[in-house]
Amino acid sequence: MSYERENIKRLKAYTPGEQPRAAEIIKLNTNENPYPPVEAIMHSLTEVQGEQLRKYPPATAQEFRDSAAKAHDVQSSQIIATNGSDELLRLAITCYCEPSGDTEGTQGGLGLTDPTYSLYNVLANIHDTPMFVVPLEDEYAMPADLAKQWNDAGCKLAMIVNPHAPSGRAYSLDQIKQIASDFNGIIIVDEAYADFAEEDAVELVKENSGFDNVLISRTLSKGYSLAGLRFGYGIAPAPIIDTLDKARDSYNTDYISQKLATAAINAREDVAKSWDKVKSERSRVEKALVAMGYKVYPSQTNFLLAMPPVDAPDAETIYQKLAEKYIFIRHFDHPNMCDKIRISMGTPAQNDALLKALEELK
Amino acid sequence: MSYERENIKRLKAYTPGEQPRAAEIIKLNTNENPYPPVEAIMHSLTEVQGEQLRKYPPATAQEFRDSAAKAHDVQSSQIIATNGSDELLRLAITCYCEPSGDTEGTQGGLGLTDPTYSLYNVLANIHDTPMFVVPLEDEYAMPADLAKQWNDAGCKLAMIVNPHAPSGRAYSLDQIKQIASDFNGIIIVDEAYADFAEEDAVELVKENSGFDNVLISRTLSKGYSLAGLRFGYGIAPAPIIDTLDKARDSYNTDYISQKLATAAINAREDVAKSWDKVKSERSRVEKALVAMGYKVYPSQTNFLLAMPPVDAPDAETIYQKLAEKYIFIRHFDHPNMCDKIRISMGTPAQNDALLKALEELK
Repeated sequence: MSYERENIKRLKAYTPGEQPRAAEIIKLNTNENPYPPVEAIMHSLTEVQGEQLRKYPPATAQEFRDSAAKAHDVQSSQIIATNGSDELLRLAITCYCEPSGDTEGTQGGLGLTDPTYSLYNVLANIHDTPMFVVPLEDEYAMPADLAKQWNDAGCKLAMIVNPHAPSGRAYSLDQIKQIASDFNGIIIVDEAYADFAEEDAVELVKENSGFDNVLISRTLSKGYSLAGLRFGYGIAPAPIIDTLDKARDSYNTDYISQKLATAAINAREDVAKSWDKVKSERSRVEKALVAMGYKVYPSQTNFLLAMPPVDAPDAETIYQKLAEKYIFIRHFDHPNMCDKIRISMGTPAQNDALLKALEELK
Repeated sequence: MSYERENIKRLKAYTPGEQPRAAEIIKLNTNENPYPPVEAIMHSLTEVQGEQLRKYPPATAQEFRDSAAKAHDVQSSQIIATNGSDELLRLAITCYCEPSGDTEGTQGGLGLTDPTYSLYNVLANIHDTPMFVVPLEDEYAMPADLAKQWNDAGCKLAMIVNPHAPSGRAYSLDQIKQIASDFNGIIIVDEAYADFAEEDAVELVKENSGFDNVLISRTLSKGYSLAGLRFGYGIAPAPIIDTLDKARDSYNTDYISQKLATAAINAREDVAKSWDKVKSERSRVEKALVAMGYKVYPSQTNFLLAMPPVDAPDAETIYQKLAEKYIFIRHFDHPNMCDKIRISMGTPAQNDALLKALEELK
């Protein structure tokens, strides 16, 4: 007998990029940082004592909150620490979206764009909240009436990822401000890639910003080379943080990850050196791909979305041929995306190997 | 403006026991193991490499699942790893309970007993699923018609904690079997304290057990001295695991906790030495409390529930007086519990200090 709720029965889980096990691979498929965590982070790991593992961890990760608040020039009460930013996104849906299935149309539901980070859809389905999805325009531009469309649909929460995934495009702070101003619900700005971008939206969550509805999502997975640690955080006006805080698991982040995350945020200046290297490689790889005839979308992330030229194999074939050479990139089986490949920036040597392999495919 | 859903607005978050910061305290209030994690666990921590933190962790914690399956003599497909057992409990509510508020009475809701582990109630409120709560009988006995009452109320999921918290009482395997047989939905047997008990319900989830509706919840927080790590797991028939797996966050457990949890399960025989010490102390402290006139409830956990004699101060006063001496125990502000104190078993020296302080209070 199946005991599942109907929405769970229908659910297709989120598909992460592959995590190949072979040793000698070049892994440019899940937007990890190609450089290892900085020394300060690894050093803090050596300081972990058994006594600290024996006891329950600080429930709200207060030390991390203090450090993150300092880094972003906000109050500690404006920071929530989460088990990866996945948890933050889930908590927001739990707290703001109605689990009404489709019984009331899209009232109380989640506003999205298409394409966007594919996890949002999965999280909404788990909660059984309806979605209202607005297609992006050419070159992944946001429609001018995006917030109005969400409002008309009755959305209580909306999510945009900026810079955008999977395209890499950065929307301007003015655009984000306009959406926050126009939208009647809470707007999540998922800044998973902000460390590689020119602007962020932190000023919109500061006290006296005039906004009470902006929640910024951050992760240590990409910028801080800590995907294995599962640590994310939210920055928002304190009332939003208080709300999310009520719905999180009692001890949602563990002692070790709190300690390493705090070390990471405090070592921000050192960590930022890897961001510069990634951005420099992004520029170099983009030029090389353009020279090969690829259409490359302007990116402010640690990846590039690229459409192969007519004289090259199609995107899916390229993905497969590279995999045979143990070079893993990402290909999405999605209507607007299947003619493109997404390449996470690797080290210069890894990127050279990729470019060489792409040349050989032509 | 408040954007919260109504059930979240009403929500009172779970109250964990205090985590006092002073150095020289005796902490007998949150059922942690008084002994540090075993050497094998701490050694595995020293093996963590930056490269492993840089990449996303194995999504399903397969190595841990293999080890836990071996330890319990079940299949790996019958194990799910979670960010503390809190996550497991939440996932079960998400997958099996309807978030209908009280619009349909208790249909599709969660069956509980009273008293029980206070987190269950909070998780149900977060999901906005109705609860049907059956009072326990004298000495925290389960009513013979417990499952029937849950069935009549339309519960889809029920939770019992065995051994019971906060009383410490162990229900027999036959009783659990009867409830699983009588109940029409999924029954969670929360075995947070099973490491200190004589029986567990693992045989009910084995293939050919005849049951398809039993989900056992385990944690490494107490038995394995790893409360700071946040690692729990579920043991159940594979279809239940498959269901829960669809609803968990994509990478719900981090690389380090997977590694340490695997080392912990593999070092089970060594870890069990602390369980013997705790049980021996439980017996000694129980006798001492009884000699002081306390009514002590038979416990198969790592704590004792005790009612002070008439010539002693009341339970709340005892709690406060001990706190002044930096000895922290637990007192619950709950109708059936407020005349009792709950004491986690410490080291022999900590327990001696507790007993001495209690003597002085008389």
